[in-house]
Amino acid sequence: MSHDRGPDQPFEDVVEGLRREGLLEPPPSAGETDEVPEGTGRVTLSFSPAERSVRVPPGVSVFDAASWNGIAVDSTCGGHGTCRKCLVRLTRGTSPVTRHDRRTFTDDQLGEGWRLACLVRATHDLAVEVPPLVTRPKASTVGVGRQVILRPSVQKRYVELTEPTLADQRTDLQRLRDAVDDLTLEPDLHALRRLPKVLRESDFKVTAVVVDEVLIDVEPGDTSGHRHAIAYDLGTTTVVATLLDLETGTPVAVASILNKQQPFGGDVITRISATMMDPEALPRLTALARDTLAELAAEVCEEGGVDPAGVYEVALAGNATMTALLLGVDPEPLGVAPFIQVAADWPVLRASDLGLDLHPGARAVVFPALGAYVGGDIVAGMLASGLDRDKRVRLFVDVGTNCEIALTDGERIVTTAAPAGPAFEGGAIRCGMRAADGAIEVIRLDPTAEDPSAAVMLGVIGDVEPRGLCGSGLVDAVAELARVGLLDASGRFVPEEVAATTAPALADRLTTVRDGERVFVLHRTAPDAPAAQSVYLSQRDVRELQFAKAAISTGWTLLLEELGLEASEVQQVLLAGSFGSYLSPASAVRIGLVPKLSVLRIVSAGNVAGEGAKMVLLSARERAGADALLEEVAYVELSDRPDFNDRFVDQLAFPV
Amino acid sequence: MSHDRGPDQPFEDVVEGLRREGLLEPPPSAGETDEVPEGTGRVTLSFSPAERSVRVPPGVSVFDAASWNGIAVDSTCGGHGTCRKCLVRLTRGTSPVTRHDRRTFTDDQLGEGWRLACLVRATHDLAVEVPPLVTRPKASTVGVGRQVILRPSVQKRYVELTEPTLADQRTDLQRLRDAVDDLTLEPDLHALRRLPKVLRESDFKVTAVVVDEVLIDVEPGDTSGHRHAIAYDLGTTTVVATLLDLETGTPVAVASILNKQQPFGGDVITRISATMMDPEALPRLTALARDTLAELAAEVCEEGGVDPAGVYEVALAGNATMTALLLGVDPEPLGVAPFIQVAADWPVLRASDLGLDLHPGARAVVFPALGAYVGGDIVAGMLASGLDRDKRVRLFVDVGTNCEIALTDGERIVTTAAPAGPAFEGGAIRCGMRAADGAIEVIRLDPTAEDPSAAVMLGVIGDVEPRGLCGSGLVDAVAELARVGLLDASGRFVPEEVAATTAPALADRLTTVRDGERVFVLHRTAPDAPAAQSVYLSQRDVRELQFAKAAISTGWTLLLEELGLEASEVQQVLLAGSFGSYLSPASAVRIGLVPKLSVLRIVSAGNVAGEGAKMVLLSARERAGADALLEEVAYVELSDRPDFNDRFVDQLAFPV
Repeated sequence: MSHDRGPDQPFEDVVEGLRREGLLEPPPSAGETDEVPEGTGRVTLSFSPAERSVRVPPGVSVFDAASWNGIAVDSTCGGHGTCRKCLVRLTRGTSPVTRHDRRTFTDDQLGEGWRLACLVRATHDLAVEVPPLVTRPKASTVGVGRQVILRPSVQKRYVELTEPTLADQRTDLQRLRDAVDDLTLEPDLHALRRLPKVLRESDFKVTAVVVDEVLIDVEPGDTSGHRHAIAYDLGTTTVVATLLDLETGTPVAVASILNKQQPFGGDVITRISATMMDPEALPRLTALARDTLAELAAEVCEEGGVDPAGVYEVALAGNATMTALLLGVDPEPLGVAPFIQVAADWPVLRASDLGLDLHPGARAVVFPALGAYVGGDIVAGMLASGLDRDKRVRLFVDVGTNCEIALTDGERIVTTAAPAGPAFEGGAIRCGMRAADGAIEVIRLDPTAEDPSAAVMLGVIGDVEPRGLCGSGLVDAVAELARVGLLDASGRFVPEEVAATTAPALADRLTTVRDGERVFVLHRTAPDAPAAQSVYLSQRDVRELQFAKAAISTGWTLLLEELGLEASEVQQVLLAGSFGSYLSPASAVRIGLVPKLSVLRIVSAGNVAGEGAKMVLLSARERAGADALLEEVAYVELSDRPDFNDRFVDQLAFPV
Repeated sequence: MSHDRGPDQPFEDVVEGLRREGLLEPPPSAGETDEVPEGTGRVTLSFSPAERSVRVPPGVSVFDAASWNGIAVDSTCGGHGTCRKCLVRLTRGTSPVTRHDRRTFTDDQLGEGWRLACLVRATHDLAVEVPPLVTRPKASTVGVGRQVILRPSVQKRYVELTEPTLADQRTDLQRLRDAVDDLTLEPDLHALRRLPKVLRESDFKVTAVVVDEVLIDVEPGDTSGHRHAIAYDLGTTTVVATLLDLETGTPVAVASILNKQQPFGGDVITRISATMMDPEALPRLTALARDTLAELAAEVCEEGGVDPAGVYEVALAGNATMTALLLGVDPEPLGVAPFIQVAADWPVLRASDLGLDLHPGARAVVFPALGAYVGGDIVAGMLASGLDRDKRVRLFVDVGTNCEIALTDGERIVTTAAPAGPAFEGGAIRCGMRAADGAIEVIRLDPTAEDPSAAVMLGVIGDVEPRGLCGSGLVDAVAELARVGLLDASGRFVPEEVAATTAPALADRLTTVRDGERVFVLHRTAPDAPAAQSVYLSQRDVRELQFAKAAISTGWTLLLEELGLEASEVQQVLLAGSFGSYLSPASAVRIGLVPKLSVLRIVSAGNVAGEGAKMVLLSARERAGADALLEEVAYVELSDRPDFNDRFVDQLAFPV
């Protein structure tokens, strides 16, 4: 392997980089170890010499716990118990001796506490000494500043086998297994079909392709430097594919297109309804989702110059409905109360189950979901933002038609879904539109500008003539109008005479349209154009946004109560998703969409779903992390709470 | 379940039936326990109150060991560690306490030795007390008198679920899992696709279909009484399918047809050669094998009145070449030295991988093979004849073009393959033919008959005019001619003058054909017809048979040496396979095909490959038994032995 180095090499830089876990979580100072609160069911692992202590759910392996926290432990099998390289010494606490331990260590060493890290289950507090690395681990920064140690499920091993003789009649498979001593090889039928011919046509010099213990192929000669995977973010509107080079951990090509299911409706509910009205709709929607993924696969492979047959794994993060439609599962129970999923997680799938024509044995990892409205995209987002790897009080909000909210106090994680409605997508807003060319996305008001034409500053997508208002522009507009006093705390436009005093430079933009509804004109298409032909914000638009933000803030308010926290205790808010990431933190605070915090604590997290999908491809341990989230996160259903409506009404007003 | 009974019911009859394991192995008398030889790596388990002790390979579970030996232990999950019903008490020796044990027993009970039998690994000698049965087990007699406890991998559970509410948002799968508490349900994608609709269309009253922990379907209402499977014996010449009712363990329909690969050649070598000469031959042969299986499936389902979608599992026993061709694996390495298989065992397959259109999630069990020439058919045969469950010295011979031989001394099992050539199939024999209408299959000679026309008694298939000589007729002819003194010990026809004295009633049948070759006329097509137009046995035919039988007897002679045994120590010879089963034991002894033993010890075992295939469908534990055979049986390669030719020449003569 090209990245082998002698044990004398200085790896401190790498270790330091791994230790960082970055921008979000400053390395804990020495001594912080004992301050971790007790009694929450987690166990504490203290790693030396890294001087880090982490708290993990009981049952997690020490190897996983180290990997998740950026502490590199030697391994070539990636934690499957086969390579016997992940040597650690337990200096406090102990763990049963396994068969593999016995084969790896002497009795004296076992007595001193040496164990294989991947076989030690953290059932109680342990102190773990990690020897210096022999193999230099590669790492990649993904998600919200997360450092992931590169240990893909996709592994390759080049081997040169001795040829069989009458005295050595081992089967082809056994011969290969004996040569690849650090991985388990469970062949699939395709690999067995190829094995005899490939071995004999390449003088028994072959590369084994293994995905998560399954031997999916043997390739002639040495192809060990080539392995690729595709991460999908399957959005209701937009689908993004990233082709990853698993050798380096870097993206090779990225492409995005509109979800081809669009003709069946813009949101999940209309698509679910379609399947309820027409039995042909589900197979059609499934086919369209597959087409979308296939087109993207072809595009990124073309752009990256990679043979599709060299893509051995895909990962996919999507909401519960998009995932169900892709897999051909009836989505109706997701769309009607009591909102039931068929399953939280999915069996081992092949890329061909998703209609993808990549390597015939390519695997597909589909993110599990926490609930009908807290889907795989959110689990991926939690993973990418390290929500379970941080001791701070953090709030995660994925803003959209359906808004997913998660809150952690550093120990527990609770999550819920809030029905925000279509306002953020531009739906039900008079001049609303998608975030496309001509959409106003940023608005700043100067109520006392000398030149009234300079009193409204607009940021427009594509730098063209404004045509409408997208979600972030809507939030900005309402936040700014409230800030300058043109909207009162209840969300009503103030009387004209008040406006003239409060915001003289803006007062004449407050007018009425034909049905008498009051509006604020953001942009006139022509100097004398009537308000109705301008881009404006109406009183009803403000109400729509109030309803949306009230749903969301009711959600996190109830989650705060669930964990016994005050809003002021939140240390970080992550705004996620294709919409949330574009939101102005100041405006979000202003209208009460998020708790009232310093804007420095409000972080645009970006496309965390896609990042989560990348992470599970880069590291099998992160996949285990996604599964662990399913166990750890408690879902809170809002729709059956008797006090929901009261709380909702409380949240309609803007914060003062 | 219909066969539930209260604990007060008398099950002694069943237990007695199970205890029998019958015709082959009389129940050991009390006290025999301690006489089992020691030091062979096996461990001894003594079961009470059955008063039976068995020796098993280390690592086998106590549950499996009991099942294999016809001792019924309660279970509904069939030994998967999920139903917690297989309670036993260890009265001598102990075993670690597992998590499941802890959930099942009190501390006191654990201290008294109570454990779940399926979780106790037999790593050392144990005495095991088995409580009376609560559930009446069903059993079926298959194979060579083997009593198999019915515990199919295919399980059904009818459940009536509570409907979901906002307060109970468990996923559909979790709801089902919670109701089926004695089985693990790992869904496949097809089952997940069906689950939401089937649950809701049948008021949440459904039947779960589980094969070996995989949930392959949910069916509306209660279908738990209906489950079927198909056992295939995939022969080079003939393919047999048996449709089994898994509820009762009985065959519903049987059908056999010629293997559609026949046009590519009558034996495995010609079919392998075809793939070497034409790259299109392998896919064509694969398609023909699949067509053969599919036609049989349709036929048995039609005859049995069973919907093919109600067939949830198939099992298939075939030789290594037939199996490779069926699965699309290049057979060339099987056909040329050093005779290498791609793998000994196969991954979990679906019936659709074999081209079968049964239940879409139906599984396929393909028997593992011990070597290129000791294939899955022989492993199935060993299973069906209980070769590893018996303490006697037993010899298993599957006679055919390739002859497989296995020998056990009650502890070890060794096996080999002998290239007998086509003589038994009628190949290379002047008047040879397949065992079809008109073939002479039985011959008795009366050398001193008063009426010469009564001196030759022929048994002819179909009771028609004889047209030729099939394999068993060939063996009979040679054996009888040797017996009456017309063939000498070296296999030469005696001079005419000797014949006239020795066998006056037969002497005139000894004549020559056109090229001067001596022949014995078995049947004249007309009173004056020349010998060449009759059905006869030629000197060269005798030589062919001598070569064939020498190959076989060299095989078992070397196996006897391998285990340090004399031929006279063999307690039972099993003649297996479609040819071996029709062979006259007396004739087989006469020509030296089998050791010189009382004919009572020579048993026609029938189609043991097909019986083995049935057994693994009827009992998942028997499948584990087939896998255990792979570990236990040692393959002895004859073709690289320097003394093989010497031994072979020694065996050419007939025994005196």
